Amino acid sequence: MDLDPQSAVVLFSGGQDSTTCLAWAIATFRRVECVTIDYGQRHVVELEAAAAIAKAAGVPQRVIPCDSFRAIGGNALTGDEAVVDGVRASNHLPNTFVPGRNIIFLSLAAAVAYTRGCAALVTGVCETDSSGYPDCRAGTMAALQETLRLGLEAPFTIHTPLMDLTKAETVVMAKALGALPLLALSHTCYNGQVPPCGTCPACVLRAKGFAEAGVLDPLLVRLGVAG
Amino acid sequence: MDLDPQSAVVLFSGGQDSTTCLAWAIATFRRVECVTIDYGQRHVVELEAAAAIAKAAGVPQRVIPCDSFRAIGGNALTGDEAVVDGVRASNHLPNTFVPGRNIIFLSLAAAVAYTRGCAALVTGVCETDSSGYPDCRAGTMAALQETLRLGLEAPFTIHTPLMDLTKAETVVMAKALGALPLLALSHTCYNGQVPPCGTCPACVLRAKGFAEAGVLDPLLVRLGVAG
Repeated sequence: MDLDPQSAVVLFSGGQDSTTCLAWAIATFRRVECVTIDYGQRHVVELEAAAAIAKAAGVPQRVIPCDSFRAIGGNALTGDEAVVDGVRASNHLPNTFVPGRNIIFLSLAAAVAYTRGCAALVTGVCETDSSGYPDCRAGTMAALQETLRLGLEAPFTIHTPLMDLTKAETVVMAKALGALPLLALSHTCYNGQVPPCGTCPACVLRAKGFAEAGVLDPLLVRLGVAG
Repeated sequence: MDLDPQSAVVLFSGGQDSTTCLAWAIATFRRVECVTIDYGQRHVVELEAAAAIAKAAGVPQRVIPCDSFRAIGGNALTGDEAVVDGVRASNHLPNTFVPGRNIIFLSLAAAVAYTRGCAALVTGVCETDSSGYPDCRAGTMAALQETLRLGLEAPFTIHTPLMDLTKAETVVMAKALGALPLLALSHTCYNGQVPPCGTCPACVLRAKGFAEAGVLDPLLVRLGVAG
């Protein structure tokens, strides 16, 4: 299948990282679309943030449902379990690990990209500051790129602009790309709170990144709770 | 994550190939479960066949929904398009090709296997007699196995017992495994007809296999339309 390497699909959750990736993709590719997976997020505020950012960025957004993970269960993001600190003894991973999630979401993005003629896939996975999720690592992405190229017979490239950046470096990149107004609309809090709870692992990581970069979080500025 | 190599999850559609794989898995592994993906098949008879066969085989079945492909569209199996002979000019594949389907279904099976402690994944993909789907090939399966091992940090092995068999050889294998009574309950017809239409590509391939193996199709015997 012929696909255009200058056309990109961004896997877009409406969080800090994928919002930065969206801005990077707009600066990098001729044509950009985004795909948001509605997988039964516990907090509808995430989907609302994604829609608002895509609209503000002027990028077409497709929302693809995926009701599989609720049925599989066994994690804190789609089930009833509370997000807790630390890791499970069984796999040494946080209870927010949803097995296979990034692989499946990127494969769904590839299926959309296939129908839309886009060869570039963009995702905000990051090895540096991640929660240790194995499906965020460069090795996994390289294997998945090969799987998608072979399995869809199409010249996909998975772009991971944040892979080796710290959260602070991601903030610097977002600022350089002029993406702070988009980040003002982004959602990060695992507990779905607006303003963000400030105490869950995702909030803590985000706050640390902005602090280290010396940039006020535009989300907190917008909500009047910065500083 | 520690998983048991003697425990298997069979990706199970209720068709001829995955039914043969189920029988193979029962003969091969200590513990067998099956996963059926409810992806919006146009014909509910497929899901009914899968449930009946799992029950007859005495194997626990989990049905995992996946509503993504209907939303992505662009194919004849989940959309309104009719199944037609021949291939599309754009990708030289039949219009029954659902981009990414096997990759995503096996990844979902891996996610279930992860929660169930099973290291073996079994699928009926076949290079020899397939419709040319690139996600049925050995190379794709090898790349996907690597992706799942890395992305879920778990020692998965994807078993493809039918990969190099013709349909006739698959029939011979099923007979040797004593699986003909299960095949009597299986469903193959792309047009969802019972008795099968006999003219769609899937029916034609199935009939050819039984004929070449010199075995009466137990489904047609059960329905009283054999010979």
